[in-house]
Amino acid sequence: MKVIEQKTPVVVNITNYLAMNFNANALLAIGASPIMSFYDKEMDDLMRIADALVINIGCLDDCEIAGMHAAAAAAVKYGKPWVIDPVGVGASSARTSTAVELITKYHPAIVRCNASEIMVLHGTACRTRGVDSVEPVEKARTCAREFAAQHRTVVAVSGAVDYITDGEREVEVPKGSPLMAKVTTMGCCATAVCAAFAAVMPPFEAAAAAMDVMGTAGEAAATRSRGTGSLAVNFIDELSLMP
Amino acid sequence: MKVIEQKTPVVVNITNYLAMNFNANALLAIGASPIMSFYDKEMDDLMRIADALVINIGCLDDCEIAGMHAAAAAAVKYGKPWVIDPVGVGASSARTSTAVELITKYHPAIVRCNASEIMVLHGTACRTRGVDSVEPVEKARTCAREFAAQHRTVVAVSGAVDYITDGEREVEVPKGSPLMAKVTTMGCCATAVCAAFAAVMPPFEAAAAAMDVMGTAGEAAATRSRGTGSLAVNFIDELSLMP
Amino acid sequence: MKVIEQKTPVVVNITNYLAMNFNANALLAIGASPIMSFYDKEMDDLMRIADALVINIGCLDDCEIAGMHAAAAAAVKYGKPWVIDPVGVGASSARTSTAVELITKYHPAIVRCNASEIMVLHGTACRTRGVDSVEPVEKARTCAREFAAQHRTVVAVSGAVDYITDGEREVEVPKGSPLMAKVTTMGCCATAVCAAFAAVMPPFEAAAAAMDVMGTAGEAAATRSRGTGSLAVNFIDELSLMP
Repeated sequence: MKVIEQKTPVVVNITNYLAMNFNANALLAIGASPIMSFYDKEMDDLMRIADALVINIGCLDDCEIAGMHAAAAAAVKYGKPWVIDPVGVGASSARTSTAVELITKYHPAIVRCNASEIMVLHGTACRTRGVDSVEPVEKARTCAREFAAQHRTVVAVSGAVDYITDGEREVEVPKGSPLMAKVTTMGCCATAVCAAFAAVMPPFEAAAAAMDVMGTAGEAAATRSRGTGSLAVNFIDELSLMP
Repeated sequence: MKVIEQKTPVVVNITNYLAMNFNANALLAIGASPIMSFYDKEMDDLMRIADALVINIGCLDDCEIAGMHAAAAAAVKYGKPWVIDPVGVGASSARTSTAVELITKYHPAIVRCNASEIMVLHGTACRTRGVDSVEPVEKARTCAREFAAQHRTVVAVSGAVDYITDGEREVEVPKGSPLMAKVTTMGCCATAVCAAFAAVMPPFEAAAAAMDVMGTAGEAAATRSRGTGSLAVNFIDELSLMP
Repeated sequence: MKVIEQKTPVVVNITNYLAMNFNANALLAIGASPIMSFYDKEMDDLMRIADALVINIGCLDDCEIAGMHAAAAAAVKYGKPWVIDPVGVGASSARTSTAVELITKYHPAIVRCNASEIMVLHGTACRTRGVDSVEPVEKARTCAREFAAQHRTVVAVSGAVDYITDGEREVEVPKGSPLMAKVTTMGCCATAVCAAFAAVMPPFEAAAAAMDVMGTAGEAAATRSRGTGSLAVNFIDELSLMP
């Protein structure tokens, strides 16, 4: 994509192990330059050369958490935008405390999540079941608006219709395919794409553009795919062919 | 698959890093809800909401081993079935001691392995070579039956003809394709599918059903595939299309 | 491939998390037997049965670094060839010190890298940007020759035209496709293939043969691929079909 390729932003990703390959391929496909790492001792070096940061809490351990804090602190220090994906927040107290602490302490530019996750972050009772959302995206919109306003961030909630808000403005992206939820780390990928866009435009516009790209590519890929295996492959193809 | 989708079981996977993405996609394709994690501090929380657990020793380190013990203990505590994949047991003393200790201490519902691995677990001399089996599945059947009876578990041995036994009953699954052994983590995937089935039916029936699903999907995928790259993709497609 | 299959070499891979699945599939496709691990406590056991070793510094942490040292020491002890991929060396001081220390201490048979990386290792000023090279491969040739001669190793520099040298001899491989750089861990895969060949022939010949295989498979795959997602799949297909 020209808008990304013109800058070829370096995007540092602290992400879960499932998402690493798929998300790196997605970032390469749209013209960004991904670095996947979680080593706390190199985060200051990496964030100095990086244009944006992804922190995804999908697979936690003590080393990863240390890397997340080092990276977020360096992003703040060097003025680079960062995006958090609070995967499965609410499923364990470790996930909840890690996500809340990172958001409160380092102020992400974008929170990219599903309906259940924003409700947990907001403090609204909701039904969580593992890492997949069981709440309709509509019910989460109030939570997203309030959370965005309170934390001065942008919240992008994925669902049948994606919803992006900065607490005042809001935009809907009614694209994509229900099959996308059957491809693992598709949500994580949306987060990585948000970060690539946040490197070249303001956070609200970046999140809206990223969710639009995800939905457009997913929709086109779904029409070409026999099942969910080929959907993952065709999705990367579609990203790599976007003008 | 309807039998899985009706419950959409949450399957927690402590698995090797290679297998995470492929196995999560396989679990989503059959209608389960996968969580991939190995963080000891969240295992009690996760196993409380989980319906089954996979422990795969393919990539060990001290953190993973701690997570495995925490998860297996929580599975026992909450009465959730768990399945072990003793990848490459015998290739190093670390693998052997980890597998033996987990099985002896926490009594898995199913041991899913290859011919060499069950012979190592059983204590029979065999030729191991890295993580790929060099023993014909037939030679391992006696070991499997004896091990299953002794440990009151189900053993599912994959091979040209898969073999499942609980020490008394036994079933053969003569499906699949030799090309499946050329796709990495295909065996790990069988283990994950066993766990999904163990969440909705008893262990012996679950292992037999899982190996049948693997063989059926693999066979269908092989007829559509040019090589081993497309086989992996088509395999997930086939899983996602099963009625 | 017959030349690999005849021995079915066991290749131990300490590699980054992105590369694990793709590289294991590549090794299986050409007829090698991959083990992916980074556990320091099993490296002596594994290297005793292994035929070659890959060390790839793409995702560092303290555990991985300990595993790298244990593995390289065991490779030296048992006389097994090992190949290093100094991913992103220069992007952080942790990467630079890890790569330099491993090379200096344990003398790899092959250094497989891109143009920027060999210039960093050689000590020549160059423009690094994340983990992707921004130097034309031609500028790096002098560095590669000098580094190979000084360290008595083989250097294989990938680029539009791959370049392999042992300090005296040199060979060019003008194959491949520019799209290969858009598939993540394609370079890591070249390193793994180098190791498989190094298990069955001398390092210089092995590196030349490996880069030729990579270029041939990549070129054939590119002609069949719609985008970069299918390129990754078709690439493994092509490897698995090589005579």
